[in-house]
Amino acid sequence: MKENRSVLNRREALKVLGTGTAGMLATEGCGLRQEKKRADVVVVGAGFAGMIAARNLKRAGKTVAVLEARDRVGGRVKAGTVAGKSVDVGGMWVGPTQTKLLGLIQEYGLSTYPQFEAGNSITELAGKRTQGKEEDSGLDPKTEADLERLTQELDQLSSELPLDSPWSAPRAAELDSITVEEWIVAHTTNEAVRGFFRAVTRTYISADAKQMSFLFFLFYIRSCDKFETMFGMKDAAQAFRISNGMHGVAASVAKELGDSIVLKAPVKSISQDETGVRVLSDAGVWSCDFVIVAVPLPLSVRIAYDPPLPAHRDILAQRMPMGSIIKFWVAYERPFWRNYTWNGLVFSDVPPSAGVYDGTLPEGGAGLLVGFIDADGALRLTGLPREDRKKIVVSRLVDWLGAEAANPIDYEDNDWPSEPYSRGCYEAWTFPGVLTTVGKSIREPVGRIHWAGTETSEKWMGYVDGAIRSGERAAAEVIEAYSVFTAKQNS
Amino acid sequence: MKENRSVLNRREALKVLGTGTAGMLATEGCGLRQEKKRADVVVVGAGFAGMIAARNLKRAGKTVAVLEARDRVGGRVKAGTVAGKSVDVGGMWVGPTQTKLLGLIQEYGLSTYPQFEAGNSITELAGKRTQGKEEDSGLDPKTEADLERLTQELDQLSSELPLDSPWSAPRAAELDSITVEEWIVAHTTNEAVRGFFRAVTRTYISADAKQMSFLFFLFYIRSCDKFETMFGMKDAAQAFRISNGMHGVAASVAKELGDSIVLKAPVKSISQDETGVRVLSDAGVWSCDFVIVAVPLPLSVRIAYDPPLPAHRDILAQRMPMGSIIKFWVAYERPFWRNYTWNGLVFSDVPPSAGVYDGTLPEGGAGLLVGFIDADGALRLTGLPREDRKKIVVSRLVDWLGAEAANPIDYEDNDWPSEPYSRGCYEAWTFPGVLTTVGKSIREPVGRIHWAGTETSEKWMGYVDGAIRSGERAAAEVIEAYSVFTAKQNS
Repeated sequence: MKENRSVLNRREALKVLGTGTAGMLATEGCGLRQEKKRADVVVVGAGFAGMIAARNLKRAGKTVAVLEARDRVGGRVKAGTVAGKSVDVGGMWVGPTQTKLLGLIQEYGLSTYPQFEAGNSITELAGKRTQGKEEDSGLDPKTEADLERLTQELDQLSSELPLDSPWSAPRAAELDSITVEEWIVAHTTNEAVRGFFRAVTRTYISADAKQMSFLFFLFYIRSCDKFETMFGMKDAAQAFRISNGMHGVAASVAKELGDSIVLKAPVKSISQDETGVRVLSDAGVWSCDFVIVAVPLPLSVRIAYDPPLPAHRDILAQRMPMGSIIKFWVAYERPFWRNYTWNGLVFSDVPPSAGVYDGTLPEGGAGLLVGFIDADGALRLTGLPREDRKKIVVSRLVDWLGAEAANPIDYEDNDWPSEPYSRGCYEAWTFPGVLTTVGKSIREPVGRIHWAGTETSEKWMGYVDGAIRSGERAAAEVIEAYSVFTAKQNS
Repeated sequence: MKENRSVLNRREALKVLGTGTAGMLATEGCGLRQEKKRADVVVVGAGFAGMIAARNLKRAGKTVAVLEARDRVGGRVKAGTVAGKSVDVGGMWVGPTQTKLLGLIQEYGLSTYPQFEAGNSITELAGKRTQGKEEDSGLDPKTEADLERLTQELDQLSSELPLDSPWSAPRAAELDSITVEEWIVAHTTNEAVRGFFRAVTRTYISADAKQMSFLFFLFYIRSCDKFETMFGMKDAAQAFRISNGMHGVAASVAKELGDSIVLKAPVKSISQDETGVRVLSDAGVWSCDFVIVAVPLPLSVRIAYDPPLPAHRDILAQRMPMGSIIKFWVAYERPFWRNYTWNGLVFSDVPPSAGVYDGTLPEGGAGLLVGFIDADGALRLTGLPREDRKKIVVSRLVDWLGAEAANPIDYEDNDWPSEPYSRGCYEAWTFPGVLTTVGKSIREPVGRIHWAGTETSEKWMGYVDGAIRSGERAAAEVIEAYSVFTAKQNS
């Protein structure tokens, strides 16, 4: 089914291509005199999506060039240092059903270990703090039951969405006409339960419940399979950490790609016509047969396209802002909270941070806590000196874990909204009325341009696993497009 | 007060500039060998905002270059032709309190005439059609009273907003946490009244009530002074038309600017450091002291900035999508509706078009109707063949005005969402949680970069009058910045 649809897109695209000669002239007009380079396929962006697409094409015998704007690979996966230890200041966990990422880890001979969760976690909802182990967060039975009821309703609603086209669900228009906040408020009067789902939206999907389309929220859950696989630890997206970090996986893929990756090469324009594509970057001009754009949608429209993108694709990118997350690491002499049989896990509905985890490394040493300044909180604190955020974070940790939290030996954070080649994290999201109007253009090829990036994935959208899936799909589309062209030439 | 703030911004900005030398290198790295050009100030965009800014700077003795991406001036003001007549397919009306635009019309020796409204207009709300003259739309008294009550409440709420900073209003967070739809539904159960405000949001502010921040909606009203000056005809924004069209006014300003305007010159990058600014466009490289970027926010971030824009300004642009409007003109042998004492005015809550007006020219001849395919309707119909939209529009006109509407002699429309250098119309708007987080960066200068465009105006935001005001403000900022620099050099 999927392949047939892809062929159809290809044929439609070829018709469009006939008019696109202006691009070549425009590029020439820029007066570039640099050496012209050539690859079968150019990939824009060396995050997981772009690197996996390039790797699969290379394995299929194509020459590729991966043009990356930054001076590093990995995209929203990034290495940082806290208390002398190498940690992930971007994507970090892997879950048991994230089979593509697990496969990659295995393929490159890397390994995982379980996220620490022995002991009590702290839950703070509607001004009340509780403690509990694993599934039991110590909430009162009434709140627990209400939470369970709403979770089941969310799972039921999300299970009705077609994974490849949530906008085509029978009730899509209705679900896309309200915010997550509207749904929450209409479905429970329990302030703790309301706070729970608001905090989930912020720390798991990086935007505020009052902004996010309820249809998008349901799709996000569906993309993770169900609520528990998104939210939980064991059996869920936060189950395992990776020895040597997620950035180690990125480095392994990058190593296979070798000098196919060109760093410090922000792409400025992509021009296509019936003869091919020209990609202009700060590191030179490439000609190629196909392009895979593997950057988040809001960044994808900062490239100039000739001919221009179809209105729907451009407008979707205009209406799919990046989420807002600042990821922090706080280091202590030792993981003192474990003395009190806490597991370091905090879930709170009080901004600016809804989630903290024990991030201590298996080799021991410093006790590490890792967490997220989320949504509006991240927008308030982005661009400020790191020291300002440290004060706020440490003060929250003292409030939760006691006076011993007051004296960290180190603090590190990554201010994703301020990074020009991310402008946010974890992923792009939609407000009401976007998916059902322009959503379907999200992975429709435009002539010789194919789209990757976790936002274009059906499964694990927003996660590294989704990025890998999107890269595999885009590579498969291009390989199929080559076969269509070959068939055309032979006919 | 305002001037003091501006000076402060300037001083802060100068501190930032110290680190920005990389931009020059990046521009060189692009390998441009074209003639370097020089102007005191470069203005990006030859809409009203950019042209007025440039004109005022020129009058103050500065040299200017206005770099315009398209092959025409006017931006969202544009000439079209229907039944052989020259009409506006973009901005078109002027109201009695739009004093800046009226002043411009007078200054260039142009004139206005009243929008035709003699006769009955048609109102269609909640499945019921009524007729009435001027203020009286023939609605039942209960609906009329409810409408009046809500309008007064909107005026009251909006009057409490500081025009220069709606995000600082005491209740801003609360008002910015809900959509217009949520407010409507919470404040009336009358479906006709609900339909009225939904249609107002669509046809006057070019987005759906279910998406738009209620705070933004209130600010928009406040920016027009009050609801009636936005919505009405006489004494309101749609009071007068301009002899020879709004595009004639744009042409007059362009004439004064002469060859300071460079067409087909899309700007690709803006690099600044302590010595000045370099602006790279398809038509060459300009060096200058200051830049005024006078394009809508979503387009402003398609330019590459070095150093990068502060996170808040970039994220605001990412979260302020363009509205969606397709403006149509339908021509008939004669204005047949006037025979039936109709005035051609239709206001309807049925998508895809909430508003139609008599657009017949004063010289007589063909009867013209002019209207808007709005919001979701425009997103559905953008990019399709014009003939498809014509069928839908004509069918609606037949439904409203009878069988005589079935045979137009001409149809013309302008598909704004598909235009690459607009990507929408009338203006950029915000969903909940945007104004109160990143809104205040909307006109904060960034080093040597100043911002214009109707979205940055306090008064008549979204209108040509607001564009003019923003251009005047930006020019004044730059003139002041020159005096600060001069004072620095002399001290």
